[in-house]
Parts: sequence; structure tokens; C-alpha cells
Amino acid sequence: MEAPGGAEGARCHHPAVEMLDVPFLPFCLLLGLLGFVCVAFVSAWCQYWRGGFAWDGSAQMFNWHPVLMVTGMVVLYGAASLVYRLPASWSGPKLPWKVLHSSLALAAFTLAVLGLVAVFRFHNDHGTPNMYSLHSWLGLATILLFSCQWLAGFSAFLLPWAPAWLRGLYKPIHVFFGSTILLLAVASCVSGINEKLFFSLKNGTAQYKLLPAEAVFANTLGLLILLFGLLVLGALARPSWKRPDADSPDSRQPLLAAER
Amino acid sequence: MEAPGGAEGARCHHPAVEMLDVPFLPFCLLLGLLGFVCVAFVSAWCQYWRGGFAWDGSAQMFNWHPVLMVTGMVVLYGAASLVYRLPASWSGPKLPWKVLHSSLALAAFTLAVLGLVAVFRFHNDHGTPNMYSLHSWLGLATILLFSCQWLAGFSAFLLPWAPAWLRGLYKPIHVFFGSTILLLAVASCVSGINEKLFFSLKNGTAQYKLLPAEAVFANTLGLLILLFGLLVLGALARPSWKRPDADSPDSRQPLLAAER
Repeated sequence: MEAPGGAEGARCHHPAVEMLDVPFLPFCLLLGLLGFVCVAFVSAWCQYWRGGFAWDGSAQMFNWHPVLMVTGMVVLYGAASLVYRLPASWSGPKLPWKVLHSSLALAAFTLAVLGLVAVFRFHNDHGTPNMYSLHSWLGLATILLFSCQWLAGFSAFLLPWAPAWLRGLYKPIHVFFGSTILLLAVASCVSGINEKLFFSLKNGTAQYKLLPAEAVFANTLGLLILLFGLLVLGALARPSWKRPDADSPDSRQPLLAAER
Repeated sequence: MEAPGGAEGARCHHPAVEMLDVPFLPFCLLLGLLGFVCVAFVSAWCQYWRGGFAWDGSAQMFNWHPVLMVTGMVVLYGAASLVYRLPASWSGPKLPWKVLHSSLALAAFTLAVLGLVAVFRFHNDHGTPNMYSLHSWLGLATILLFSCQWLAGFSAFLLPWAPAWLRGLYKPIHVFFGSTILLLAVASCVSGINEKLFFSLKNGTAQYKLLPAEAVFANTLGLLILLFGLLVLGALARPSWKRPDADSPDSRQPLLAAER
């Protein structure tokens, strides 16, 4: 008999399929390490090759942009998205996990806004127009979507006013846009790193097309960010890592409990 | 009672959740239209602003690169990936659908290889180095992954030699990499369009940062490609559009039936 495959099948335990059943917590450790490496790489790139950091409208201020975006929109956002995959969140009151999920997402959003401030102020202080490249369109669309996602999630799942039918209707939408926003953030990072290297490496022996050490390093950063994003998206989609009963009664426990 | 939400819940028919249950075929028509618009946009960009097409090592030869990649790695690839979501494929012999799936994927792969030829020959004829940008690393990695995916899929699901346990083990991996490769292809397209616009729009009044009509048009193309990719990935992940019984007996019918 053929083993059950596909998304549904992973819950059935054919021995061959079970071989793929990596435990979640070791995976998380690996993912955390990879996230740390991404933040370390982007910081090292900006510190070692791009002149370090400042908050004064200079090119050193721009350097906060990639660091804050990778840390916020990729690593912290990825951590926030995986909160409900922790088996510890599957029993007991759900409220602390909701608060953790929304707090991590809010921290990610805050870093992203600071990352926007860094690039807009750098552009404005240098007379460079804002919002012309595909990278900028995509990046801003990602952050606007994220702000809608956070506000809608907070209103529906933490405030007490949303009726149960609305929460049930919105939950799969929230889940879908959760993955979508991460995908858009990763595509933004890749296009941004590519763009920055074309800007920075254009003269003398350090031209991008001559593939100097900086280009190898930053290209590798781009691939590591992609790998991180793919692992998070894969973990989110994995049926056997989802809460077995996504419809437990306390899943509708709001932050401010209405009288009931 | 709260409605079931999340990936699993969509099969249960709470009235509120049912409102989201768009039928697959109208969705496919919309998606086909969007795919057509993507191909029309990338062709129009190269024809109208970039000088049209040729196969002679010139800049007109490069123009085949974006057109072939968008048509092959995004639109045709997306069509191939959705074959098993057609309700017509859920009953009767599965072999014709397997042949359709692998043929569409092979057509996509062929266009992608021609797209690579176009850019490598253009670079070589102009003394430009190959494979230095993050876009090129990501794009080539995507196509190498795709070639492994096609060969492994063909060997496991169409040739008769793979044992059932191996097929069962490989199927979720094939499904996961199917979505992964589309995501990588979309990220490659976005970074490639961004890169091309920086290359092409740098002098006079047509600078990228002045956002001329070409930049608006090609940025919009990038967003349309992203939207197409997201809709395909969303359709693939949607539980209610998956074959109800992914483990039907004929799912192991190989192309060349071994004696059994």
C-alpha cells in the first residue's frame, strides 16, 4: 500500500513518513541559530564594509535600515509566527501565548518602522527621491499589510468585542496573510540587498561584477535570509506541528474579557 | 461556539467560513487571466522600452530572459503545480493528470533553460561576468532545484521502479519543494526586475529615481508577478481544494507499469 502523502497524510503514521517527523524543538534551536546568523551577517556587513552605524541622516544612518528590517521583519516576525507551534501553547490558558504572539509581532513592527525612518531620513538628507524602486514599493506594501494584520489580529483575537463567527471567519485569513507577509518580507530583503550592492559596488576593483569579498558575503546573507524564511514557512505549513485541536474553547479568550 | 479556523478547519462547514469558500474553477480563470497579463506586461516592457527581441547575443537577445523566465518559471510552473487541484483529476485514472503535470513542468523548465541561454550568451558576447549578483545566485539555485525536483518526481511517480514506501516518503517532500521553487522563482523575478531597471534607467531624464513611465510599468509587473505567485501558493495550501482522498489506489500508477 502506498503511504499517505501530502499535507493531510502526515498525521497518519506510516513508518517511512515518520522518518521525516523532525521534532519541533530541535528544529526551533536550529532556526534560532540561523536567525542569529542572519542578524550577525547583516550587522557585520554594515559595520565592516559600509562604515558602521549612526543616527544622523548619513550613510551610517542608512545602515540601520537593513539591520532593523532583517531583525524585525524576518527574524522576530518569524519567531512571532511560530508561537502557536510550541507544544507548550497547546494546553492551559491561551491568553499568555496570544500576548506573546502579539508582543513579538509588535516588536517586529516597531523595528520595521525604525528601519523605514532610517532610509527615509537618509534619502531626505541627501535629496534622493523616496519610493521609486520595486524594492521600495514591495517593502512598503509589506509593512502596510503587516500593520493591517496586527491591528485586525489585535481587534479580533485580543479585544473582547469581536463575535465568535467573525473570529472564525477571520482566523484563516490571518493565518494566510501571516505567511504571505513573511514571504513578501523575504522578497523585499533579497531585492534590497541586490540593489544596495549595485549602489555600493560600482567603482574600481570593488565592482559588484568582479565579485569582491563583500559581494560574496552579502549574497550569502541573502540566501541565508531566504533559507530562514523558507524554514519558517515550511514549519507553519507542516500539519503535524499544528495544534491538534485548533478549536479549543479557550481559543476565544480575549484580552479584556467581556462580562460573560 | 467559535467556528473552526486554521488550515484544518476549512473542511468543516461553519456558515461564516463557507463564505470564504471560493469555487476553484472561477479562481483558475482569474488566475489564468492574471498569468496572461504578467506575460503581456513583461513582453510589452521589453518590446516597447527595451528595443524588442532577437537571438543574436545583443541586448535584444537579453530581452528574452525576463519574458522566458516569467512565462516558464512563474506562469507555466504555476499552472503545472495546480493540476491536482482540478476536481476532474480526483476520479478516474490518474496517469493522464500525472503526464499533464510533468509535461507542463517540463515545458516550464525548457523555457527557463532558454532564458538562461539568453542571458549567458548576452553576457559572454559583451564580456560581462556571469553569476555575480544575488539575483543570479538565487535564479540559478532555483533552476537547479527545479531540475532535481523534476527528475526526482519523474523517477518516483512516473517510472515503475520506485517502491511504494519511497513514493510515500518522497511525496510530501515533492509537495514542499514545489511551493518552495515557486517562491524562489518569484523572489528571483522581483530582484531581477529591480536590477534591470537600475541598469537601464540611469541617464538623463529617464533615471529610475525619477520614476519614468517604464519604471512604473515594470514595478507594477513585479507586483503582479508577486500576486500571481501568492495566489498559486494560497491555492496549493488551501485544504478544501486538495483531493479529498490523496491516497487513492491509482495514485501509485506509474507511466510504465511494471508487471503486477
